[in-house]
Amino acid sequence: MSHNTFGKKLRLTTFGESHGVAIGGILDGVPAGIELDIKVIQKELDRRRPGQSKLSTQRKEPDEVEVLSGVFEGKTTGMPIGFMIKNTDQKSKDYSHLKDVYRPSHADFVYDKKYGYRDYRGGGRSSARETANWVVAGAIARQVIPEIEINAFTSTVGDVTIDKPYQALDFSKTESNQVRCPDQGTAKKMEALIEKIRKEGDTIGGKITCVVKNVPIGLGEPVFDKLHAALGKAMLSINAVKAFEYGTGFCAADMRGSEHNDLFNPDGSTITNMSGGIQGGISNGMDIYFRVGFKPVATLMQDQKSMDKAGNEVVVKGKGRHDTCVVPRAVPVVEAMAALVLADFWLMQK
Amino acid sequence: MSHNTFGKKLRLTTFGESHGVAIGGILDGVPAGIELDIKVIQKELDRRRPGQSKLSTQRKEPDEVEVLSGVFEGKTTGMPIGFMIKNTDQKSKDYSHLKDVYRPSHADFVYDKKYGYRDYRGGGRSSARETANWVVAGAIARQVIPEIEINAFTSTVGDVTIDKPYQALDFSKTESNQVRCPDQGTAKKMEALIEKIRKEGDTIGGKITCVVKNVPIGLGEPVFDKLHAALGKAMLSINAVKAFEYGTGFCAADMRGSEHNDLFNPDGSTITNMSGGIQGGISNGMDIYFRVGFKPVATLMQDQKSMDKAGNEVVVKGKGRHDTCVVPRAVPVVEAMAALVLADFWLMQK
Amino acid sequence: MSHNTFGKKLRLTTFGESHGVAIGGILDGVPAGIELDIKVIQKELDRRRPGQSKLSTQRKEPDEVEVLSGVFEGKTTGMPIGFMIKNTDQKSKDYSHLKDVYRPSHADFVYDKKYGYRDYRGGGRSSARETANWVVAGAIARQVIPEIEINAFTSTVGDVTIDKPYQALDFSKTESNQVRCPDQGTAKKMEALIEKIRKEGDTIGGKITCVVKNVPIGLGEPVFDKLHAALGKAMLSINAVKAFEYGTGFCAADMRGSEHNDLFNPDGSTITNMSGGIQGGISNGMDIYFRVGFKPVATLMQDQKSMDKAGNEVVVKGKGRHDTCVVPRAVPVVEAMAALVLADFWLMQK
Amino acid sequence: MSHNTFGKKLRLTTFGESHGVAIGGILDGVPAGIELDIKVIQKELDRRRPGQSKLSTQRKEPDEVEVLSGVFEGKTTGMPIGFMIKNTDQKSKDYSHLKDVYRPSHADFVYDKKYGYRDYRGGGRSSARETANWVVAGAIARQVIPEIEINAFTSTVGDVTIDKPYQALDFSKTESNQVRCPDQGTAKKMEALIEKIRKEGDTIGGKITCVVKNVPIGLGEPVFDKLHAALGKAMLSINAVKAFEYGTGFCAADMRGSEHNDLFNPDGSTITNMSGGIQGGISNGMDIYFRVGFKPVATLMQDQKSMDKAGNEVVVKGKGRHDTCVVPRAVPVVEAMAALVLADFWLMQK
Repeated sequence: MSHNTFGKKLRLTTFGESHGVAIGGILDGVPAGIELDIKVIQKELDRRRPGQSKLSTQRKEPDEVEVLSGVFEGKTTGMPIGFMIKNTDQKSKDYSHLKDVYRPSHADFVYDKKYGYRDYRGGGRSSARETANWVVAGAIARQVIPEIEINAFTSTVGDVTIDKPYQALDFSKTESNQVRCPDQGTAKKMEALIEKIRKEGDTIGGKITCVVKNVPIGLGEPVFDKLHAALGKAMLSINAVKAFEYGTGFCAADMRGSEHNDLFNPDGSTITNMSGGIQGGISNGMDIYFRVGFKPVATLMQDQKSMDKAGNEVVVKGKGRHDTCVVPRAVPVVEAMAALVLADFWLMQK
Repeated sequence: MSHNTFGKKLRLTTFGESHGVAIGGILDGVPAGIELDIKVIQKELDRRRPGQSKLSTQRKEPDEVEVLSGVFEGKTTGMPIGFMIKNTDQKSKDYSHLKDVYRPSHADFVYDKKYGYRDYRGGGRSSARETANWVVAGAIARQVIPEIEINAFTSTVGDVTIDKPYQALDFSKTESNQVRCPDQGTAKKMEALIEKIRKEGDTIGGKITCVVKNVPIGLGEPVFDKLHAALGKAMLSINAVKAFEYGTGFCAADMRGSEHNDLFNPDGSTITNMSGGIQGGISNGMDIYFRVGFKPVATLMQDQKSMDKAGNEVVVKGKGRHDTCVVPRAVPVVEAMAALVLADFWLMQK
Repeated sequence: MSHNTFGKKLRLTTFGESHGVAIGGILDGVPAGIELDIKVIQKELDRRRPGQSKLSTQRKEPDEVEVLSGVFEGKTTGMPIGFMIKNTDQKSKDYSHLKDVYRPSHADFVYDKKYGYRDYRGGGRSSARETANWVVAGAIARQVIPEIEINAFTSTVGDVTIDKPYQALDFSKTESNQVRCPDQGTAKKMEALIEKIRKEGDTIGGKITCVVKNVPIGLGEPVFDKLHAALGKAMLSINAVKAFEYGTGFCAADMRGSEHNDLFNPDGSTITNMSGGIQGGISNGMDIYFRVGFKPVATLMQDQKSMDKAGNEVVVKGKGRHDTCVVPRAVPVVEAMAALVLADFWLMQK
Repeated sequence: MSHNTFGKKLRLTTFGESHGVAIGGILDGVPAGIELDIKVIQKELDRRRPGQSKLSTQRKEPDEVEVLSGVFEGKTTGMPIGFMIKNTDQKSKDYSHLKDVYRPSHADFVYDKKYGYRDYRGGGRSSARETANWVVAGAIARQVIPEIEINAFTSTVGDVTIDKPYQALDFSKTESNQVRCPDQGTAKKMEALIEKIRKEGDTIGGKITCVVKNVPIGLGEPVFDKLHAALGKAMLSINAVKAFEYGTGFCAADMRGSEHNDLFNPDGSTITNMSGGIQGGISNGMDIYFRVGFKPVATLMQDQKSMDKAGNEVVVKGKGRHDTCVVPRAVPVVEAMAALVLADFWLMQK
């Protein structure tokens, strides 16, 4: 059924557990003749990497991508691009105490029930480590559609939210702070909130906004592959995501048609953009923008009551190396998944 | 690329335009030996049908389903179930004035740009008439998983919202009013609001909440077919949907891990259900619940400025037969799409 | 799993049993803007129709195709083309005697074991009646790739074989006799052989050769969708087919590289065409040619020993209306399947 | 479109060029809890490896498989199994003289026309080196269906053919000679023929027969995934294969229904097995047997006239390390592809 494959024409198939030998993937469908910059891929991986700042997990992994095929003398050949990231910092012993324990709000319990047998080290396949594969593939996808600009940023952490429309933000500032918020004043408040919660041994959720510019008209399919449905599925595939909305999103529920309709300019663009760049499932050339909601990380630096396989009550100790708020590190993941969807639909439409 | 097929093991492939000869579909993957009640299918179609009440479009269509294959002497044979609904009330002349006109926030403009040629009658393939096919297939899917209970209802219209948790609602009351809201007091306010807006020639958005009970543990796949991602894509495929969230949804952004984590009862169920019945993409046996946000209908009973193919400004007159608020009629569509996803994942897991 | 769908970009999904209400299908992926000639579709259906001549089954069915969607004012819209052929000559009573009987070398036994429940009338879904759907879809596919010429013909019936290379044949003569053999002398011998065997109440196998001209260079994929592998699968999907070979086929087993290699002309064409127009899975612009082997029809006009569901020995009486040799009627089916594959790969390559 | 993925429920996705860093793949869909013997995988790889005997290419590659994921403490976890084989004997300089040259009956010409850019070293992705990936995956697949016995062997080389039915052969002898022919007398003749042709700098074709025992009843789908059609596609995907037949194959063309029909024994087995273990596309529990025809290798140790990119006539020198007859080394590849198909259909049917 291909539950480890994403996309239709540009297809990413992945493998790997958090603490196995390596993770990696095969990206199929990249056209021949594209000059592929491996350094750009590595740079995106570095943005996702743990241990970037004191706000994120201190687990240190170089996360170095190795491209194994599909590229010859610097150019893509149209053949599948195999790649791999070795797991250098496996430290499996960290997890041995969790062998028979179900951590609250993790996948431990359902994996055991579904598969009967699991790699319990660091969550195995359910670990967000898998998203490193997506970042590699997304960085390749962006080189397939260089004209399309994808900018994601942290728009909310807990009760701290950017109170400006995205048009008022300077995306070149996103990387200038640890939370990846382009508004510096808000960023400071977010950092302070995360630091406070970290000291309490707790975690916090947040939101990411993503803005996509220069999308050609016509991407998306009328019925079951509406562009926003594909973006929604992509975002909901990211670990810890609970919600997705595009354009006016949930706010549209309290709007009238007369205020929500986007009237045309004579050139076919629209005066407003309530639609979020997609109408009837198909891009109309306006900016696509959407928001993604993340729950707080389930691993706490506190003791939590839980149960083991046998149904006994146990206490899960807070140890290991974990993020207080995953949202800043998820920004490149959101961009990568958006790039995979857009490149896929661009190739389908070409 | 199969843009008209939905599902993996239980696959719905559909055809049909709003004003063509017929719409219909093929549902592939239904196991053999299920006693199929055609009357139940028809009943669901009747719930979706236009012209049910003064609140919805007065377009009259009997929408009678004809099952063409896959059922023999009342039982499914495991072969594909072909079905058809004839378009009896085509009245194509209603739409001739729209031949070269792009209606604001409809798919007219993007279809023309993407395909170069379109069936402009009633939106053609982009019409929500397609959802009648989904309701048929969903009603069959429900008979594949009779033990799973799916209840959707209108939870918000404009600024009117049910202010109770779903556990306090009696779903048997959902059909007792025109807006399909199980809380009678709220239903009255919703009806009044819709009637007011209808008189103004305007439209209004809303939200649907869906609750799924008795889901077995283990439905969903770890990476790219997380159960909630599949539900999200299904809901975002419904016309006019702008947003999807499950469990705590966007509210999780402002929650701490210590309050969001669902601690276990000794039997493996959880004390709270912030997760919304899905952990790591896999059902954990608790209730699945999610919300879907709808924008207001784009067709108004008012004049709107717009443009034609040649780029000239034109006025789109408010005429035809349209809903003021699609949310009540979308309730069976949400249930149908949820049923298709759950039956598909149930068959995959079996 | 989509076991009733064929193709990747041009996708045919079908339904229907031999003696149900109707058979039909959905052809997805046809580009917009093609002028579609329904009469050409009907003409192909007529070529496959039972009862054309005294050599074939006397079952009379008008087999009239109804196109239900995807075509507007004579042109394709890019939307799925739904179509249907009603079963007008159902005569289910003909088959009631077979309800619990397994006919030798039919699918009765395996269907019962696999599904536990089956539509036993005329073989149900396993009937070659399904190929009428393929002929409809193939006739549409040919209008997608009008420049590609596809000519199939009966090359062998029993021990009667055309002893000329295909280059020496005049394909315009194929329809001029009942066996669809372009060589008139051989055709007469085939007809005589079939008539002889018919009188004996027996059946006979045969072979079809198919020649495809004007195929652009570059159709086919290097690894798992080699063009000849797709053609092979398509042909092996046709009822009664036991064998497929292309180019030199099995004869290549006794050839040397020095005689099998196709040397180039300066324009990139090749002097010989042992490769059969496909190298490394990809068309090279030369004629594609292949042969398909058919077993004799399993339904005889003789009594045969067999068994029933309970394991009792029974005698299957020779009755009903059946072909002595299916090969002549399979000629348009081979062409249709070739057209579906070629149009699919042409769309993928475009 | 997934042209590098094979299978539906058990899916193999591969990457890699003949002279790149590595080849490898991801096998998705292996159930959890299977004890996986890596040594068995390596043993199959060794059977396919170049340089096994003086009859095959002297290119030396250890071809060591590395399993990267999906296996934990010796057991499968249900997660995708990533694997890799490094290319240790790359010697790219061997091929630099072929940079702009099109070798006769290779994929060079069509790759350049299709992709515009190619990895010309050793055929790149079109090299039969890819089949090493299939052998790895097939060896895993066999451990999913241990009860099913798959035995392939060389049945024909040039004009030397085993003249016994497969039932008279002792498959345990297949590995006892260099040509993998279980009949020792025939094997000697095959070896002599290959040696003779090798000395002439030429190559020769051949056939492989494959026999599958202990197949459960019910594998295969009625219409577009008939078991034999899937086997045919799998075999036709193997480099140099030109033909496929199962059961009576092409011989059925000259048989009568009365001699071809397989009459039942009281237990549901059949007295004869003309059907080759598959009826109506579905396994009936009898032995499945089929034959695969291979053309002679296109790379000769002789000079051949050819052309370069610019259309100039060039001479391709016979150099490098190549097989005189690929058939013996293709035996494990045929078994691997059969195993992949059977395990896939077994998982679908389960």
